[in-house]
Amino acid sequence: MKECCGLFGIYGDPEAVQKTYFGLHSLQHRGQESAGIASSNTELIQCHKGMGMVRRVFRAGSGILERLSNPIAIGHVRYSTAGASKAINSQPLLAEYSRGQVAVAHNGNLINATLLRDEYQAHGSIFNSTSDTEVIVHLLAKPTHLNRADSLAHVLNHLQGAYCLLFLFADRIEAARDPYGIRPLCIGQTGKGHYVIASESCAFDGVGAKFIREVEPGEIVTLDERGFSSRFFAEPGPAGRITPAHCIFEHIYFAKQNSHIFGENVHEFRKKLGRQLAVEHPADADVVIPVPDSGTSAAIGYAEQSKIPFDMGLVRSHYIGRTFISPDQKLRELEVKLKLAIVEEVVGGKRIVVVDDSIVRGTTTRGKIRTLRQAGAKEIHMRVSCPPLRYPCYYGVDFPTKEELLANNRNLKQIKEFLEVDTVGYMSLDGLLHCATLPADHYCTACWTGKYKIPVDTAVSKFGMERYQMRMFEQEDT
Amino acid sequence: MKECCGLFGIYGDPEAVQKTYFGLHSLQHRGQESAGIASSNTELIQCHKGMGMVRRVFRAGSGILERLSNPIAIGHVRYSTAGASKAINSQPLLAEYSRGQVAVAHNGNLINATLLRDEYQAHGSIFNSTSDTEVIVHLLAKPTHLNRADSLAHVLNHLQGAYCLLFLFADRIEAARDPYGIRPLCIGQTGKGHYVIASESCAFDGVGAKFIREVEPGEIVTLDERGFSSRFFAEPGPAGRITPAHCIFEHIYFAKQNSHIFGENVHEFRKKLGRQLAVEHPADADVVIPVPDSGTSAAIGYAEQSKIPFDMGLVRSHYIGRTFISPDQKLRELEVKLKLAIVEEVVGGKRIVVVDDSIVRGTTTRGKIRTLRQAGAKEIHMRVSCPPLRYPCYYGVDFPTKEELLANNRNLKQIKEFLEVDTVGYMSLDGLLHCATLPADHYCTACWTGKYKIPVDTAVSKFGMERYQMRMFEQEDT
Amino acid sequence: MKECCGLFGIYGDPEAVQKTYFGLHSLQHRGQESAGIASSNTELIQCHKGMGMVRRVFRAGSGILERLSNPIAIGHVRYSTAGASKAINSQPLLAEYSRGQVAVAHNGNLINATLLRDEYQAHGSIFNSTSDTEVIVHLLAKPTHLNRADSLAHVLNHLQGAYCLLFLFADRIEAARDPYGIRPLCIGQTGKGHYVIASESCAFDGVGAKFIREVEPGEIVTLDERGFSSRFFAEPGPAGRITPAHCIFEHIYFAKQNSHIFGENVHEFRKKLGRQLAVEHPADADVVIPVPDSGTSAAIGYAEQSKIPFDMGLVRSHYIGRTFISPDQKLRELEVKLKLAIVEEVVGGKRIVVVDDSIVRGTTTRGKIRTLRQAGAKEIHMRVSCPPLRYPCYYGVDFPTKEELLANNRNLKQIKEFLEVDTVGYMSLDGLLHCATLPADHYCTACWTGKYKIPVDTAVSKFGMERYQMRMFEQEDT
Amino acid sequence: MKECCGLFGIYGDPEAVQKTYFGLHSLQHRGQESAGIASSNTELIQCHKGMGMVRRVFRAGSGILERLSNPIAIGHVRYSTAGASKAINSQPLLAEYSRGQVAVAHNGNLINATLLRDEYQAHGSIFNSTSDTEVIVHLLAKPTHLNRADSLAHVLNHLQGAYCLLFLFADRIEAARDPYGIRPLCIGQTGKGHYVIASESCAFDGVGAKFIREVEPGEIVTLDERGFSSRFFAEPGPAGRITPAHCIFEHIYFAKQNSHIFGENVHEFRKKLGRQLAVEHPADADVVIPVPDSGTSAAIGYAEQSKIPFDMGLVRSHYIGRTFISPDQKLRELEVKLKLAIVEEVVGGKRIVVVDDSIVRGTTTRGKIRTLRQAGAKEIHMRVSCPPLRYPCYYGVDFPTKEELLANNRNLKQIKEFLEVDTVGYMSLDGLLHCATLPADHYCTACWTGKYKIPVDTAVSKFGMERYQMRMFEQEDT
Repeated sequence: MKECCGLFGIYGDPEAVQKTYFGLHSLQHRGQESAGIASSNTELIQCHKGMGMVRRVFRAGSGILERLSNPIAIGHVRYSTAGASKAINSQPLLAEYSRGQVAVAHNGNLINATLLRDEYQAHGSIFNSTSDTEVIVHLLAKPTHLNRADSLAHVLNHLQGAYCLLFLFADRIEAARDPYGIRPLCIGQTGKGHYVIASESCAFDGVGAKFIREVEPGEIVTLDERGFSSRFFAEPGPAGRITPAHCIFEHIYFAKQNSHIFGENVHEFRKKLGRQLAVEHPADADVVIPVPDSGTSAAIGYAEQSKIPFDMGLVRSHYIGRTFISPDQKLRELEVKLKLAIVEEVVGGKRIVVVDDSIVRGTTTRGKIRTLRQAGAKEIHMRVSCPPLRYPCYYGVDFPTKEELLANNRNLKQIKEFLEVDTVGYMSLDGLLHCATLPADHYCTACWTGKYKIPVDTAVSKFGMERYQMRMFEQEDT
Repeated sequence: MKECCGLFGIYGDPEAVQKTYFGLHSLQHRGQESAGIASSNTELIQCHKGMGMVRRVFRAGSGILERLSNPIAIGHVRYSTAGASKAINSQPLLAEYSRGQVAVAHNGNLINATLLRDEYQAHGSIFNSTSDTEVIVHLLAKPTHLNRADSLAHVLNHLQGAYCLLFLFADRIEAARDPYGIRPLCIGQTGKGHYVIASESCAFDGVGAKFIREVEPGEIVTLDERGFSSRFFAEPGPAGRITPAHCIFEHIYFAKQNSHIFGENVHEFRKKLGRQLAVEHPADADVVIPVPDSGTSAAIGYAEQSKIPFDMGLVRSHYIGRTFISPDQKLRELEVKLKLAIVEEVVGGKRIVVVDDSIVRGTTTRGKIRTLRQAGAKEIHMRVSCPPLRYPCYYGVDFPTKEELLANNRNLKQIKEFLEVDTVGYMSLDGLLHCATLPADHYCTACWTGKYKIPVDTAVSKFGMERYQMRMFEQEDT
Repeated sequence: MKECCGLFGIYGDPEAVQKTYFGLHSLQHRGQESAGIASSNTELIQCHKGMGMVRRVFRAGSGILERLSNPIAIGHVRYSTAGASKAINSQPLLAEYSRGQVAVAHNGNLINATLLRDEYQAHGSIFNSTSDTEVIVHLLAKPTHLNRADSLAHVLNHLQGAYCLLFLFADRIEAARDPYGIRPLCIGQTGKGHYVIASESCAFDGVGAKFIREVEPGEIVTLDERGFSSRFFAEPGPAGRITPAHCIFEHIYFAKQNSHIFGENVHEFRKKLGRQLAVEHPADADVVIPVPDSGTSAAIGYAEQSKIPFDMGLVRSHYIGRTFISPDQKLRELEVKLKLAIVEEVVGGKRIVVVDDSIVRGTTTRGKIRTLRQAGAKEIHMRVSCPPLRYPCYYGVDFPTKEELLANNRNLKQIKEFLEVDTVGYMSLDGLLHCATLPADHYCTACWTGKYKIPVDTAVSKFGMERYQMRMFEQEDT
Repeated sequence: MKECCGLFGIYGDPEAVQKTYFGLHSLQHRGQESAGIASSNTELIQCHKGMGMVRRVFRAGSGILERLSNPIAIGHVRYSTAGASKAINSQPLLAEYSRGQVAVAHNGNLINATLLRDEYQAHGSIFNSTSDTEVIVHLLAKPTHLNRADSLAHVLNHLQGAYCLLFLFADRIEAARDPYGIRPLCIGQTGKGHYVIASESCAFDGVGAKFIREVEPGEIVTLDERGFSSRFFAEPGPAGRITPAHCIFEHIYFAKQNSHIFGENVHEFRKKLGRQLAVEHPADADVVIPVPDSGTSAAIGYAEQSKIPFDMGLVRSHYIGRTFISPDQKLRELEVKLKLAIVEEVVGGKRIVVVDDSIVRGTTTRGKIRTLRQAGAKEIHMRVSCPPLRYPCYYGVDFPTKEELLANNRNLKQIKEFLEVDTVGYMSLDGLLHCATLPADHYCTACWTGKYKIPVDTAVSKFGMERYQMRMFEQEDT
């Protein structure tokens, strides 16, 4: 359930399907489990989806893109989480209801999905998947909802949690972002004037589009034959307009360096974090090296601020994928070495600062530290560009359980000992928020503070999902 | 939509899934498009299905059968009809509703599926496939239906048309046959006492089971921990109990020679037809040859009655499948020759009787006749073991449109000329029914007479299906 | 090594490659392990081959046939023998030598392959496969052989054993058959006058060709731009011209019913065998049933002669292939039932004659007998249309070792008891030869008599092959 | 023919095959076209190879590695060159000759391969591939060579050109490097004392081995049950010992940053180049950005020397592979954007130095320059860490023809105009050699100077190869 996904949509372009294919490639870092495209010729929606990366699902020479070719298209890539990898949950979800066909693509996590599902099942609905998305389609099809002036807005107001949604109807695309703006979603325009929607602006370059602006929290954007239109669906709460809760972890880890989200460029933001980290946690060292690729931007910032030379002491292999063989534990450790090679000449005999974006369980980090020691590093100073992760995310980031988080029950001394480093320095929350462009209260910081902006009934949310996962297990081809 | 499918179910056997796999192999002649098995450990239902033959979907070494291994299982094979070959329609259909999981496998065709679908969509239901089966699950999940004393019986009474259904609930299998008993369904028992349900009894031999009896029209059979139980769901109409309408075309063409359906063995029935055909349409000839394999039984009967020697003048290739390349028309004709080879020594210079079970469009038959002529046949006397097909079937047999049927607008003389034979003789309807074991009014003969026992609103039935097919087109992997 | 294979070649036809594809389909019964086609545009030879049936290796939509398209082509299908299934041995074998490219396809077995291989290795040759065919190419490339007036004839005179060979040179096809004519090879002509060569004439129908004649033992047939030409390469032995040794087992078992080999039609020959069998071994019985499909022709003959009705008591499944799952012994027995279903109504309470073409180990036959008993057969009279198999074949038929042959150490009484039949009757050798068209001494009968017409050093032949198999084991993709 | 490949071998390790698999992963950057492993249990050699990357050929769950498991193993990855991608050329090449089996893996290019092939064909040898490697096996099998005291040394002395070779005999591995030491090859040892051979030392980390030394030019290293032994095969020329001719392009481009070749670490060498480049071609700029990943090391050096900040203005996608769809030219340009994304915030309004390792045709570089301009770069100063490429390589690097090389007929002004940059600066040859550890005359610099240390008959070498390619074209599965 917990997932990070990527969305792409484009209206009116004769090459809409091919551009969606390119756009999904640029968003591949947001999900490698499954990929899918639904397209419409204004009357009929077609859909193709499958397990694996975009390149595999729409493999060259298969003719699939050609058969899908239509001027309106949406696409989806899905993140792989261990147990729940299922073809039945791949997206877009294509369904028929009383108003015709609709295809839906979703990024985020609904915290009231279980409650809604129970309610709809009690009223006779049947479910064929375990995805939140199917719940949304049921809401959409409900006759009392359809009778509303703005039925889509009415439906969205039932949803709680994080969601960016693309709805492909036969004649239009409707894009919506939850009132808290937890996940990113932005609007672009191609040179020929066609509108494009994507989870991150990095998907625009590859299709010749320019970034226009982000979809606002609580906004519905419609792309149809009249062009572009916008409306807001979020009903003001008792305290007035909702303050956003952007997932700053998107900025720190998920998003691609060349994307522009939450008001600024990802790479520049991360460099600022690196500089701030150097201010908060200086080190007396010979060289600054990143854990590539996610720590590279912050390491450049750290090196710049600290005047310690930047270098590449760890080199990432481009060929080691997730389907690796791990016949036994000993060989499994070798596998880590294959993914991140060490340049001994950079680290041997040196006092090194290692910069990473975050530490989750700590075991992978410790593995890298050990190989750096073996390569002769004299001192290792670990620097992390976000605060210690202590709480689970209910809005779509797939952290392990609280108990598995390194920082959950450990103080800094214990963390230092666990990681086997000479010093460890985490970015402060204040420092982090200080680097950000938007006001500090516009971000969700729950994974560090445990303060969830959208109240979560954790028992229902967690247990409910697992219950459905169990009940709906369906085997798939490999 | 129009389809012939095969069903198999078994309760309580530790090897239930493997036996379902064997059972589906024995029913492979009823459908080669897709195959699937759902199994339950009494608490959780798992499902695996895919496009292609049983052997491919559950390929050796894939570990799929092992992962599915559970003591309760149902399986399904699906017939390939040209345009509607879709993975989303493969069965069993696994869904969750308020009472938990259910997997459904269906053989037949509902004539009111479109009406029911429209009604349910109007009330807010969403559909993910174009199969009749999804409609049935919606009916099953409806709260007012669930409140009934026998909710399954209540649901079945809403269905009109031909249906044999297997419902796998976590703790039991429920098997139902429509009140007219249009398609076959029978009950067997293994040596160790486990009950088995299958479309045809030919599936019993391969799993070490013995035929017990057919499921009665309008009967629900339950297999659960208490063993075997039975009840009837069909409410008597104004005229009292419904007279069955067994599809005699199952007997003539679909069913396997070693199956026992509608009260008698298929091969013996077909031999009787052959003898009757020889009485009705004798021929002065040297040899009787069947169109293998479907005409073989009748040809043996014809030869026996007529005292004309039986021989194999046409030999079927075991290696020519449906995925054949047909680059152009000329090569396509060669393809027919590859499928059915001629033994010139049997037919050259001879007066031959060619026996086939039926003639649909007539073009394939004419192709065979022409190659027999080229091989030197002196006279060709075509004999067909059923009357001329003139009307479409709405209960699940995939005939072409009325206009395409050879016998639709042609008298016997025109048929003879079309087929380019010396004489042609069709079995009379009386002769056919005379050969059958059950009373003449217990069979459906609509494809010859146009008299449909269950009233059909042909416009709705045909058009509705096509409308959905169009609306729901979804591309699939090959 | 021991193998039965199928060959096809065609010269000058714009559709040569497509027709080779069709021709290989018609010869698929001679080998399902691998398939390959080599074609030439008169200057360059291209080749594609792979593991599996023709349909899989040249799958529709792959564009392979189109890319190979050339007016000169040869093709090959290879029989699967348990241990030696290897892609490196698939054919045609394409090689380059001093005169350019050559592709070779071979059906048969050289008894001096090991000796030749040892000799060539001693002179510095390297081998990349374990096939006899590679030896032949080495002989072809030897400079002293190339200097001969007719170098191909010179090379063929070095070969001992059974061989039908197709050589594709850039500008021509040369087809050769060993001086004993052990395996069949025949010549046809298409309607447009292009010459065709195939292992069996059944391959001609599918490509619109007519049978002209067999390639003579010791003959080389050349197809090139001048058309068709012929020469003989076999040097007369001390006793003058060689008497043929046609493998009569091809006639009894391998060849397809509509083929014309060794001077007559296969189906008609087998019917004669059935009649002769009825004369030699009459039975007092109610019905004659074949073991389909190989026993069908003889059973028709037996029924005709004996006046006992012919019927189909065993029905073969068209969908059970060789890749079947056999998880354990018990389920394995079920598998036999799946392949051959019994029509109880035909055999129950009856005295039956079961006709098969041959019995090898006897275990499969006994399995069928037992299921016939279970189905209620009152008496079972086994009739076999060839004599008891007692000796191995060194010329290309893959019999098991002598010790495994049912008839090796058993007298008729013991065979009867092993098979659990009421009576057993094998065709006499005299009876068999009497049915054949050619003089009795024109056939190889070694598998019944142990008299090998080409002297075999059994130690070298058997052991040598296994030695190479062991040495050259190379893994292949599945 | 022209190829860069990777070799790996290990002797005596129970996990030899798994480690070869890991080792090939670390060498994947040297070849993605095909992969293969041959292993020996001291008596029998087995081999598995296939098209594609290591991960695909030895895919998890296939059981292939397990079946190959033996204590002696060699492996090979092969570089993809456009036209000659053929399974028949994949390695190791397994063959049998008079002394038994041998498997050979080769990195490099023989300039006398055509001459040797012609000579051997004239003496009767047959060839099944177009690889140089097959020629080597023919030499090895020649009886007069086998009679020599050191037959392998004798054979190697016939070879001209670049070659690193691994020979797997049933009981040992022999590794050889040509007398000029053109390609790298080095020796390592695992923690448990097993010897390892690899093209680059980066393959050692992943298998827990330590770098010992490079294989010397002209040296044969033997790994067998007695451990490690060494001998030299190169016969001194008239001028005494051969001066090495290490391919310095390996250092600049091919090798991985953490490898140690030709006496020093690759990353450190490239940083030195960057510093030297900054000395030779300073720039008045705001930021230094590399073309990742090959230009990163030099860019770090350039930034360090010039004091201009280093930053990541171009971000490489990890998911764009070589099998990309390029439906038309316009979309093809989009594809370049997908592979290398630009971070506008880094380059917008800036004067930037772009550092790359080399420029071949110049069109890809120009594409990047243009996108940098579109992203707002104010000035672009191109800096290249090697001299202008002007001559083809005959020793294994797959440059395009001389005519296609950007620097072939252009002076610096023309190059600057072609690339559309503000300034362009190439490393001087003297500067390059000055950075290197070994004496200047120990490197091959032919691609910049045209001075080939091993005389090349370019007509024979180039034309000969193409001739064979044409003659031996064989289609392969995709």
